[in-house]
Amino acid sequence: MKVYIIGLGLIGGSLALDIQKMYNDVMIFGIDSNANHLEEALELGLIHQKATISGIEDADLVILAVPVDVALLLLPEILDVVSEKTLVLDVGSTKNPICEIVAKHRNRNNFLATHPIAGTEFSGPQAAVTNLFEGKTIIVCEIEKTAYKKQEVAFDFFRNLNMRIRYMEPKSHDKHIAYVSHLSHISSFMLGKTVIEKEKDEKDIFDMAGSGFESTVRLAKSSPSMWTPIFKQNKKQIIKSLEEYISNLSTFKSLMEADDYEAIFNEMKNTNRIKEILK
Amino acid sequence: MKVYIIGLGLIGGSLALDIQKMYNDVMIFGIDSNANHLEEALELGLIHQKATISGIEDADLVILAVPVDVALLLLPEILDVVSEKTLVLDVGSTKNPICEIVAKHRNRNNFLATHPIAGTEFSGPQAAVTNLFEGKTIIVCEIEKTAYKKQEVAFDFFRNLNMRIRYMEPKSHDKHIAYVSHLSHISSFMLGKTVIEKEKDEKDIFDMAGSGFESTVRLAKSSPSMWTPIFKQNKKQIIKSLEEYISNLSTFKSLMEADDYEAIFNEMKNTNRIKEILK
Repeated sequence: MKVYIIGLGLIGGSLALDIQKMYNDVMIFGIDSNANHLEEALELGLIHQKATISGIEDADLVILAVPVDVALLLLPEILDVVSEKTLVLDVGSTKNPICEIVAKHRNRNNFLATHPIAGTEFSGPQAAVTNLFEGKTIIVCEIEKTAYKKQEVAFDFFRNLNMRIRYMEPKSHDKHIAYVSHLSHISSFMLGKTVIEKEKDEKDIFDMAGSGFESTVRLAKSSPSMWTPIFKQNKKQIIKSLEEYISNLSTFKSLMEADDYEAIFNEMKNTNRIKEILK
Repeated sequence: MKVYIIGLGLIGGSLALDIQKMYNDVMIFGIDSNANHLEEALELGLIHQKATISGIEDADLVILAVPVDVALLLLPEILDVVSEKTLVLDVGSTKNPICEIVAKHRNRNNFLATHPIAGTEFSGPQAAVTNLFEGKTIIVCEIEKTAYKKQEVAFDFFRNLNMRIRYMEPKSHDKHIAYVSHLSHISSFMLGKTVIEKEKDEKDIFDMAGSGFESTVRLAKSSPSMWTPIFKQNKKQIIKSLEEYISNLSTFKSLMEADDYEAIFNEMKNTNRIKEILK
């Protein structure tokens, strides 16, 4: 089995590790525009061999794990050269733009649009870990546009990763993920910014990190190169979610200003429901 | 050694467990206005015996671990009845109001104002865990107002807990903690609210929780009874931090609206500094 992984960061690298455990006779070819990352991926044993896109006509499985703006450029090129047997998966955090860009491609049915809901705040080949996807959800979009045989390859792959599959329309995915993932990242980045600006003496932040700050600001360690194109592609939904978030924060501030602590108590009490939802 | 713990929630209960490990001949007396919690603390083995405030004249150590509004009522009562040998510690998340309320008390030098920077999002006696304070920071305020012999008892206690001590003025503590702890809680509560309001179908939240939402929203599980009085007591500093946070979020939204993705990249890149700060 020949697997090509394009983009050897956290997701691509972690998939490479799991794939090596899953299949006995697998050969993993790596592609990355960053020569250092590619070399690192080889040294870390994530991939067996460096490769280029021209070589993938021979692939059984191609995984596109690059920033979402680069994915829009590469996917049509990849579909141009794939053979009949090849399944191409992307794993990006936006789904509507990539589904639109290949909607009319003659090899559209070689492609499956996915978004594994798994990750950490770290990036690059060094961030790759085994079992990152174990028990997690993978969102699958436009399943009906992928050829039946390739669907089977994909389902087999997800089953081996032990992932739960959920089907969504691309636009619906982008709307939900704006709230649950993209907004979380912005709230975390801006919280980090607010505290850094205030705390000129960094020692104070460090010592006070145990107080809940560390977990709320964890996502502010994420890669700007990965997140900027996501924000760009999901602009409309993200602005809407940001508006609602800012409005809720402003209401909370007004309640504080009005000394309405009963209402503040109730705001928190109602939101405690998150305990049951996330259980 | 006789230890009285008033308030047998997460902090009081966890201290009770550590104290039992620390001292051989210790007797822990528990006080809690919630009769169920008191009974639970006894059943869980957090305390050896139920007690009332009138009994504490005999105590070596009194730990006041109640909501910060209740602490303002109880601390003067406690100092009224302590004997010469008794050290009284509070552990609240605001320090200026409690220091002010006992500033002129005749037994002020029996008291030490502290804030251990440790916790989880859970509450009640069931939330108590051992080693919660291991390696964490404890903020100590107005050390010079505590009698020297009681300072020694306190330092011995913190050393046994393996905590690092930092000294701060009460007002300075309340200003810093507004940013690093209180604001984090509000950002998390309002993020939870925004997403719950949007996602009527709770299944969507659940499945997408792996995407970073779970850690940013963790603090929204916290107890409203504990947090409402903290927000009330630190109102001025919290409103200021909220204003700065809302302003940063609004700027981010404006950059999105203006398609200024270079500036958005830089906002994130600059905030990535949090990686080094929290290391």
